[in-house]
Amino acid sequence: MERPEQERALAQRLAQRLGPRGLLTERAEVAPYEVSARHGMGRARAVVRPSTMEELSEVVRELIGSGVHMVVQGAATGLVGAATPSPDGTQWVLSTQRLRDVLNIDPVNRSATVAAGYRLSDLNRSAQVHGLVFPIDLGADPSIGGMVATNTGGARLIRYGGVRENLLGLQAVLAHPAGEMVGHDLSLRKNNTGIDWTQLLCGSFGAFGVVGRATVKLHPVQQQRATALVAVDSVEQAVELACSLELAMGEFVSAFEGLSQGALDAVAQHQEQGVFATTPPYAVLVEVSSAIAPGCGLDLDAMLMEWLELRFDRGEVLDAVVGKPEQLWRLRHAVSESVQALGRLVAFDVAVPRSSFAAFRHEAARIIAQCMPQARLCDFGHLGDGGVHLNMVVPVDTGAQQIEQLREAICDAVVMRFAGSFSAEHGIGPYNQRFYDRFTDSSLYRACGALQQIFDPRFQLGRVRLGQASFGQA
Amino acid sequence: MERPEQERALAQRLAQRLGPRGLLTERAEVAPYEVSARHGMGRARAVVRPSTMEELSEVVRELIGSGVHMVVQGAATGLVGAATPSPDGTQWVLSTQRLRDVLNIDPVNRSATVAAGYRLSDLNRSAQVHGLVFPIDLGADPSIGGMVATNTGGARLIRYGGVRENLLGLQAVLAHPAGEMVGHDLSLRKNNTGIDWTQLLCGSFGAFGVVGRATVKLHPVQQQRATALVAVDSVEQAVELACSLELAMGEFVSAFEGLSQGALDAVAQHQEQGVFATTPPYAVLVEVSSAIAPGCGLDLDAMLMEWLELRFDRGEVLDAVVGKPEQLWRLRHAVSESVQALGRLVAFDVAVPRSSFAAFRHEAARIIAQCMPQARLCDFGHLGDGGVHLNMVVPVDTGAQQIEQLREAICDAVVMRFAGSFSAEHGIGPYNQRFYDRFTDSSLYRACGALQQIFDPRFQLGRVRLGQASFGQA
Repeated sequence: MERPEQERALAQRLAQRLGPRGLLTERAEVAPYEVSARHGMGRARAVVRPSTMEELSEVVRELIGSGVHMVVQGAATGLVGAATPSPDGTQWVLSTQRLRDVLNIDPVNRSATVAAGYRLSDLNRSAQVHGLVFPIDLGADPSIGGMVATNTGGARLIRYGGVRENLLGLQAVLAHPAGEMVGHDLSLRKNNTGIDWTQLLCGSFGAFGVVGRATVKLHPVQQQRATALVAVDSVEQAVELACSLELAMGEFVSAFEGLSQGALDAVAQHQEQGVFATTPPYAVLVEVSSAIAPGCGLDLDAMLMEWLELRFDRGEVLDAVVGKPEQLWRLRHAVSESVQALGRLVAFDVAVPRSSFAAFRHEAARIIAQCMPQARLCDFGHLGDGGVHLNMVVPVDTGAQQIEQLREAICDAVVMRFAGSFSAEHGIGPYNQRFYDRFTDSSLYRACGALQQIFDPRFQLGRVRLGQASFGQA
Repeated sequence: MERPEQERALAQRLAQRLGPRGLLTERAEVAPYEVSARHGMGRARAVVRPSTMEELSEVVRELIGSGVHMVVQGAATGLVGAATPSPDGTQWVLSTQRLRDVLNIDPVNRSATVAAGYRLSDLNRSAQVHGLVFPIDLGADPSIGGMVATNTGGARLIRYGGVRENLLGLQAVLAHPAGEMVGHDLSLRKNNTGIDWTQLLCGSFGAFGVVGRATVKLHPVQQQRATALVAVDSVEQAVELACSLELAMGEFVSAFEGLSQGALDAVAQHQEQGVFATTPPYAVLVEVSSAIAPGCGLDLDAMLMEWLELRFDRGEVLDAVVGKPEQLWRLRHAVSESVQALGRLVAFDVAVPRSSFAAFRHEAARIIAQCMPQARLCDFGHLGDGGVHLNMVVPVDTGAQQIEQLREAICDAVVMRFAGSFSAEHGIGPYNQRFYDRFTDSSLYRACGALQQIFDPRFQLGRVRLGQASFGQA
């Protein structure tokens, strides 16, 4: 697209409408919006930053009407490049950063309506005043709009579900008809009155419209929390522990995180101190928690300890560190950084049914040993829900082609042999579009293409192609 | 449609393909499929009953290809007529009754894949063997396919969510392209790899395709349960109790059911015995439960009792009956029948945010007193999630027009003034299509019409029109 005249006129109209903070065109101002959290850089034509739903609607109408292509960007914490402008410099960035016109907590209904530009931490600061929390627990601090568009999961999904399970309503602006608002801010837990637009847009990476507001469920804040880092002699044993813990501790289980030997070693190396005398083959971070205040008839520390002792007696665990939750979580959160510090990172975000987890883990290790014998596997992740960040460190000079071969081999195994997901939490963006194209079955591919054809016929919104446009013969 | 020759040929092909049990055409055989659970009768041309996904696909291809119109019917427990053939006798019934080719439990992954024709009770019998449960708690025993198409909620939604929150995958057969299978049976809790077809079809009353199989989350069976029937002096007080209970008992709260004075009186009259000496203005059935076995560090009976005593001391409750859970639930489940036994039933299935519940309840009582002073209001329902079955008994000779005026007045208040839902649990069917048309906002109406145009362009599937077919100008 080379239409400098038209785009200059468009920029003028937008600057007039939104004020000087609403439109950024200088290189220095635009640059921060071109950085991806993990995969490279893009190049933006301009950045437009509406601050209300009405402005958002006008901006989308103007951009679409002017034939502009755009990516929507929240806090730019995504890991698949969906919010980074393309490198060719043709796309505008529609930033939701200033879209902070509503943050309403309804404590009696345990719900909140919040504009897309607020961050998870903003929402939780407001909710906490009422003893409530939006319990999606992530390493990053994304925008609400980005969380909805991605359907983020996190470490406590096993207890609370992800964004999808906690989303009551959503207001979005469509690209076609350009600028049209759809959706609602109803805070209803039961509402079966037609096609659920909220759920169609959740996890669609904004392909059908720009998320402007979300209405979400809130939960009572946890008042007690007991954690343990448990060493086991195999992944199989870890999976058995997950089942055992759920049977014994039921609704209290709020996290069950897996840590491989490689991940534990990476942390020990980075922090110059190991948590176990000898690093075990595998470990799990177990968390149980409750909204019941301590001293009100429930002692989770004691319950967890009793469960652990029984596991010891039965020889099901090798060792355990029972510590302050913050300490053990700090260790868990240090994994990502520690692995990256070791060298060049190759990362996967996959999931399989928990019943296949151990078999998949063995197969993945075999594939890695075969394709890239120099790689050091440091996987970790949300074993309780079958998710694993199959991250590894490879020599700095490893060729791109070799890495790509490994990616294909691992993703093929995940999807074709273990009925798993090649993108468990991070969604779809240009970075993994090729796997989307490869693994999406043909009917779905056509159907999604047909939807995109309806809602974004000129493909002006985002960077993901959902499928072919044609869909049978009417 | 009057094409007896073609339909005869179609019937012959189907009978040959499916065998004698697969196609019913005799009046006596067809008649049971024409009965609606609440609203009148329909008339079916024939009933076709595939027993595998492959047969389902062939049946849909044959019916659609022959220009036949159909309704899909599971266990026919729906309350909005969506599964009842139209009265004009032109529709075929596609029954999923025999579609029972898969019922697989994965205990390690806590999930199940189950064919549409199984009933909720079938699934739970199989799950229970592994100490697991599909925790959607309903008065009826619907088919799994019907539950998914309706997104049923029930009495324990406050704890577990509805079908939507517990649905991992779905396999369906499309009307267009006719007979095409879409979806998957992946049992993944994290899978962000594109548009979520599962969620688009859930709660769509089969408008886009016929649900053949579902993959669902299972939960540990509850090992202890404490219940109380608590009398309060107002609806406001009941809502405050809900908040108080959640703060005190957190994740244990599994039901919070409201019972009006009228509902309590109806049960007392029907059972010739009241549960309270004097019927209070309002009561709630409170249930707390846990997967933790009794004697393992948690005593819910004691905790509930302590909470109740504190409420007594503070004058927040008038009276309470603490009893065996089965007894109190029997009373709760007797309401529907008891109200019906009093005379002619006019029923609503609405929901509002819990924070508006009391104000809405007062306004509804005012509207009813004004429009239909003879009505006896006997409302009850899922107060914990804002749902209420605003049922009432009216004189047998009440005119249809008067009832319709009341319906409109109540639904207008719910939607327009209290940001509520005119169909909280029961979904959309011919019975409440007029409210769907009235309350669905125009952009959504157009967008849903566009989807229906893609997936069922000749409107051969079901009885619900989702909107206009035209959608902007591409």
